[in-house]
Amino acid sequence: MSLLTVGTVAFDTIETPFGKVEMVIGGACTYISWSASYFTNDIHLVSIVGDDFPESELKRLSDRGVNMDGLKIVKGGKSFFWSGKYHNNMISRDTLVTDLNVLADFDPMIPDSAKSSKYVMLGNLTPAIQASVLDQLDGSQSLVALDTMNFWMDIAMDELKSVIKRINLLTINDEEARQLSGEHSLVNAAKVIHSMGPEYLVIKKGEHGALLFRGEEIFFAPALPLAQVFDPTGAGDTFAGGMMGYLAKTDDVSMENMKRAVITGSAMASFCVEDFSLNKLQILNQSEINDRLQRFKNLMHFDLV
Amino acid sequence: MSLLTVGTVAFDTIETPFGKVEMVIGGACTYISWSASYFTNDIHLVSIVGDDFPESELKRLSDRGVNMDGLKIVKGGKSFFWSGKYHNNMISRDTLVTDLNVLADFDPMIPDSAKSSKYVMLGNLTPAIQASVLDQLDGSQSLVALDTMNFWMDIAMDELKSVIKRINLLTINDEEARQLSGEHSLVNAAKVIHSMGPEYLVIKKGEHGALLFRGEEIFFAPALPLAQVFDPTGAGDTFAGGMMGYLAKTDDVSMENMKRAVITGSAMASFCVEDFSLNKLQILNQSEINDRLQRFKNLMHFDLV
Repeated sequence: MSLLTVGTVAFDTIETPFGKVEMVIGGACTYISWSASYFTNDIHLVSIVGDDFPESELKRLSDRGVNMDGLKIVKGGKSFFWSGKYHNNMISRDTLVTDLNVLADFDPMIPDSAKSSKYVMLGNLTPAIQASVLDQLDGSQSLVALDTMNFWMDIAMDELKSVIKRINLLTINDEEARQLSGEHSLVNAAKVIHSMGPEYLVIKKGEHGALLFRGEEIFFAPALPLAQVFDPTGAGDTFAGGMMGYLAKTDDVSMENMKRAVITGSAMASFCVEDFSLNKLQILNQSEINDRLQRFKNLMHFDLV
Repeated sequence: MSLLTVGTVAFDTIETPFGKVEMVIGGACTYISWSASYFTNDIHLVSIVGDDFPESELKRLSDRGVNMDGLKIVKGGKSFFWSGKYHNNMISRDTLVTDLNVLADFDPMIPDSAKSSKYVMLGNLTPAIQASVLDQLDGSQSLVALDTMNFWMDIAMDELKSVIKRINLLTINDEEARQLSGEHSLVNAAKVIHSMGPEYLVIKKGEHGALLFRGEEIFFAPALPLAQVFDPTGAGDTFAGGMMGYLAKTDDVSMENMKRAVITGSAMASFCVEDFSLNKLQILNQSEINDRLQRFKNLMHFDLV
């Protein structure tokens, strides 16, 4: 099944305790598309870049089955740029620079061929833009997922709530779930958020894994314990890409299959953090992915006797 | 099989955002024994109290199959007292009072009948006292577990390392694992700690669950997501008690069975935090415990397809 992803394609400059990289490829849509491309080659990407963005990188995506008809390239424009520096714990970070550049005028036009995509992943953007994407879809979707952040809760909570009402799966982190719901306990937060609309909720806890909620059902996917986390940038988007790519591949939105999708997303995220930028995500093969899924199985499997 | 547990029996005064209780029953040995008593009724408790400790509470333990021959009751002495106040996040806390009282002179004498206990849980005490317990055992143990804390790493690291060398299972929290090993990554920390002696290592992460390590094998037990955490006091000891009680019951120290033991400990800890002190732990039945174990299974089970 086809997957539509709408979000940023960008440059990042990242510093971690292990080193620094400048003007590397980043952006939610980029991570989502690369991650999903290991599961489906029917992906539509909708984003905006300046003509400073390397054609070779766009071609690499295109070669992975990513349809770029929805990518607007602004002549003479500069691509979205983010720069951040991670603290020694590799969790907290300072944002040093956010240059919206061409993203300031992003008004996504969904190509006709993408309007019936069965699976849709709305990356973290203004709620108004996310709503405009929903307005353009043909309504035949099997599952629409949306990512957001505390910033939009601070300045556009009402708009955010009205777009959340229209989607099937919300992905946010634990602090955002608390802010959105007004509840400290994630179990109670999930109840409140379900009542806002989404049937599924994924609460991301970074190195502490992710919780999947549907009604009274809860599933927990740990983060894979790793000897070294090199760069966490893009891990959340890589998680979303693996999850949505798996759903597009299997076309099954039951809770049981959603569990597998969440584990698949966690496995892809565990690759992402092992190197800067897309370095690791761009060179995987199916056997490595299968091995990693088996490591999750070993990490979590037990029998009651 | 028999379980020997050595540690504190105490009074606690605890304040959480949900209320305050004064001079309630506490102590590592108390939580460990109560938790383990749902799995074995062949438990030896070795500890020290003053004659201010209520006989009725000792009788309740005794009625659960806990042999109290190793409990020293100091005439005219006062029992160990701890007081703490939890912050709103229910994780960090301030210790307000630590009155060692009779614990200052604790020199545990293991009764002859307990020296051949197949399973031994050494609660958090000075490394010298833990070593003195090991010296008194007959060497026929199947598994000896030890709990400790950062305080002993600060002031008695060498003594601690020499007692860690003699045990089979170490339980510590994530920050303590980092301090003990000098490694930030828990995967690397586990390697270093294995090289210090223990075949098994459990790293407790509070609300984020626990990791079980043996060599290259890792198993993860999440904490059960709860609508309300009422009082986290004793959760770590309750975890240890459930784990060790399950091992004593099943008498199997394979990695597969250790996984079940860790899940059992997590299930018991999830009861502990639902009320103050031992209130919940003292009124459980087997059916509630089985239901909770099934909730862990549901929380973690998935099939790869």
